[in-house]
Amino acid sequence: MRRLRAQTVFGALHALQTFSQLCHFEFTSRLIGLNSAPWMISDAPRFPYRGLLIDTSRHYLPLATIKGVIDAMTYSKLNVLHWHIVDEQSFPIEIPSYPKLWNGSYSYSERYTMPDAIDIVRYAEKRGVNVLAEIDVPGHARSWGVGYPELWPSDSCREPLDVSNNFTFKVIDGILSDFSKVFKFKFVHLGGDEVNTSCWTETPHIKEWLNNNHMNVSDAYRYFVLRAQKIAISHGYEVINWEETFNNFGDKLDRKTVVHNWLGGDVAPKVVAAGLRCIVSNQDKWYLDHLDATWEGFYLNEPLKGINNTEQQRLVIGGEVCMWGEQIDASDIEQTIWPRAAAAAERLWSPLEQIAEDTRSATSRLSRFRCLLNQRGVAAAPLAGNGRTAPYEPGPCVRQ
Amino acid sequence: MRRLRAQTVFGALHALQTFSQLCHFEFTSRLIGLNSAPWMISDAPRFPYRGLLIDTSRHYLPLATIKGVIDAMTYSKLNVLHWHIVDEQSFPIEIPSYPKLWNGSYSYSERYTMPDAIDIVRYAEKRGVNVLAEIDVPGHARSWGVGYPELWPSDSCREPLDVSNNFTFKVIDGILSDFSKVFKFKFVHLGGDEVNTSCWTETPHIKEWLNNNHMNVSDAYRYFVLRAQKIAISHGYEVINWEETFNNFGDKLDRKTVVHNWLGGDVAPKVVAAGLRCIVSNQDKWYLDHLDATWEGFYLNEPLKGINNTEQQRLVIGGEVCMWGEQIDASDIEQTIWPRAAAAAERLWSPLEQIAEDTRSATSRLSRFRCLLNQRGVAAAPLAGNGRTAPYEPGPCVRQ
Repeated sequence: MRRLRAQTVFGALHALQTFSQLCHFEFTSRLIGLNSAPWMISDAPRFPYRGLLIDTSRHYLPLATIKGVIDAMTYSKLNVLHWHIVDEQSFPIEIPSYPKLWNGSYSYSERYTMPDAIDIVRYAEKRGVNVLAEIDVPGHARSWGVGYPELWPSDSCREPLDVSNNFTFKVIDGILSDFSKVFKFKFVHLGGDEVNTSCWTETPHIKEWLNNNHMNVSDAYRYFVLRAQKIAISHGYEVINWEETFNNFGDKLDRKTVVHNWLGGDVAPKVVAAGLRCIVSNQDKWYLDHLDATWEGFYLNEPLKGINNTEQQRLVIGGEVCMWGEQIDASDIEQTIWPRAAAAAERLWSPLEQIAEDTRSATSRLSRFRCLLNQRGVAAAPLAGNGRTAPYEPGPCVRQ
Repeated sequence: MRRLRAQTVFGALHALQTFSQLCHFEFTSRLIGLNSAPWMISDAPRFPYRGLLIDTSRHYLPLATIKGVIDAMTYSKLNVLHWHIVDEQSFPIEIPSYPKLWNGSYSYSERYTMPDAIDIVRYAEKRGVNVLAEIDVPGHARSWGVGYPELWPSDSCREPLDVSNNFTFKVIDGILSDFSKVFKFKFVHLGGDEVNTSCWTETPHIKEWLNNNHMNVSDAYRYFVLRAQKIAISHGYEVINWEETFNNFGDKLDRKTVVHNWLGGDVAPKVVAAGLRCIVSNQDKWYLDHLDATWEGFYLNEPLKGINNTEQQRLVIGGEVCMWGEQIDASDIEQTIWPRAAAAAERLWSPLEQIAEDTRSATSRLSRFRCLLNQRGVAAAPLAGNGRTAPYEPGPCVRQ
C-alpha cells in the first residue's frame, strides 16, 4: 500500500486500519511482514451507520473504559458510539443550564463534566467515530427528578416525566441546547420507548390537564414525543427515536426521523415502506446483554431482511449492537462486547456477497481478529459459546 | 504532603501512590481535593516480598495485558511479578542459547522475544516491581521437547525432563545464562512441584542410568533439583522452589533457598523452623483461579499463622497470590485478579494491628479501591461473592 486514496480523512483512517491488520511481526526476521503482497484493495462500507450502544446510567463507565471501547470500535470499523447517557437509575452528566440534574448521579464521583464529554467526543472524532447522545424521554427518566422533583408527576409516582408541566420541556430545551455545543453529530437520540403512562392518569393535576386538553394518555405520549422532536430540531439536530414512537404514531413523526428498531426483526420493512429511515438493533440478535446470543447469531442478522425495493433499502442507514448496562460495568464490558460486536461489524461493512452464508467459513477470521484485539489490549472474550465465556482449558488463542 | 522522605526511589513511588489515593476530583470547585489535611503518614511494608503470579504457558498473555497487570500491582503496592513463563503446554519465550525451545509455543505470534522480556522487566522496574522468572523443572516442562525432543525421556513418555541426559542440564544452564542478562531480580524460581516420575522408571535408558547410579526416582528427583539449583547459583541467582522440594529433601536444599508454599497452610512454620526462608501462597486461600475464594478469604489469610518466634517470623519474606492460567487469558485476567489480590496486598503491607479482624470494617475501603481501579482503567470485578462475578443489578460502584 504505497498509495492510499480516500474521499475523507475517515476513509484514510479505515484504510490504515485495514493495512495494519494485513501486517504482522515476523519472529525470524524481526521485521514487520506483509503476506501475499502486492495488495490492491478497493473498499467502502455497505452501511453509513455502524453503531454500538453503551449505557452509563445503569452502571457508571469511567472515561478510560469508554475510550477503550472507542479504540476497539475503530479496529472493527464501527463508526457511531450511541451514548445512552441517562436513564431512570442515574443522571451522570453535567447540564450547565440545569445544574441540579446530576444530583441524580449515583455519587459525587460517578459523573461526567462537560469537559469530560468534550474529551470523549474529541477522542472519538479523531478515530472516525461519531458520538450519538441520547436522552430517553418521557419514560426512562426518573433520575431527572432527583434534582428537579417538579419533573415527576408526583413524589410517589415518578415516571414518565410530567407531560403537563411546561418546565419539563424547558429542561429538555436546556439539555439539548447544552448538548448542541458538545455533541456535533447531526443526530440526537430522544428515546421514546417503554412509556408506562399510568402515573399520568393516577396523578390528579395531570389527569385534569389531560381532560382540559381533550387528550388520552396515548395522545399525551405522542404530544410529548413530537414536542421534544421540535425542540431537538430547533437546535439543529435530526432525531432518532426508538421504534415504539413509529409503531404508535409513525405518520406524525418528523419526516426526517430515524426509527431505531429494537423489539423484533420485522419493523424495518414497515419503517422504510413508510418512507422513514431506520437503524436495526433487534434485541433477539444484536443485544449484547443477551449472553445467550452467540457470535454466529450476530453475524447472520441481516438488516435488509424482507426489504427488496432498492429505494427502501437505502433508507436502512445501518445497524447497531447494544450493550445495555444492567450487568455491565468497567469490569466486564469489553469481553461482553467483543468479539460478538465485530461479527455484526463485518456484516455492516462488507458487501453482502462477501458475507459468509455458513458461519464456519468466518470462524477462523473472527478468531484471529479476537486475538488481534487481545494483542492490542482489548479484553475480547473467546469465540466459543455464549457471551463473555472464559476459556475453559489451556490452548492457543485461535482455538478458544 | 509537601515533604516526602523515603530511603529508596521505590519508597518514594509508594508514597506518591498513597498521596494519589488521598486526592480526588471535586466536582463543585473543579479542583483536586485532599480531605482532612494536614496528613502525616509514616509508612513501611510489613513484608518485603509481595507477589502476584501470572502464567503465560496455559494461555499466552499479550504484552499490553502484562503491562496492565503491572500497573494495577503498583496501585496496591505489590512488588514482585512472578512470571511463570513456561509449563508443559507451551514455551513462549525466546532463548537465544537454544533457539528451538520456543518451537514449543502455541503459535508464531504467541511468543515473547528477548526484547519483549526486557521491555516487561524495564516497565516493571520503573514502577517498583521486580520480575521473578520461573522455569518449572523437572515436571511441567513437556513443551521444552518440541524443539529438542532429546529432553523427553522418550517420544511416548514426555515428562519430566530426562534426568539422565547431560543435555538437559546444558539447556537449563543456557536458559539461566540468558535469563541472567534480562531478569535482574536476585531470585529465580526453579519450580520443582508435582513431579510424576513414572516416565523415568518406564524408559529403559533412564532406568538403566538410575541403576548404574544407585538411585531410586526419589533420589533422582532430588539430584535434579539440587543440580538445577547449583546452575542458577552459578549465574548469580538465589533460588526459589515450590514446597515439594522442601517436603521431600529440605535439609539438602541450598541454605539460601526460599521455599514457596502452595499446598496447605501449615508448611511455613516447618520451613522457618528449619531455618529456610518462605513465601506463602497456600492454594485454599491465595489462589486466584479458585473462583469460590472470596475477597474475605484473601484478606484473612495470615502468613505468620502458627509462627510465634520472632526470628522465625523474619524468615517469612512475604506472600504471593497466584493467577494460574488454565481459564484465564487477556479477556478475563484483570477481573479475576482484582480486587481480591488487593485484599491480600493490604495484609502484606499494613502492620498486623491495622488489619481488620472483622472484614466488614474493610469492605467499604476495598470497595472504594476497586472503584479507583476501574477509574484508572483496570477491570476490577465487583466485591460481592466469588471471583470475577458480574454486577447483578444497576447501582453505584461502591455497592456492587
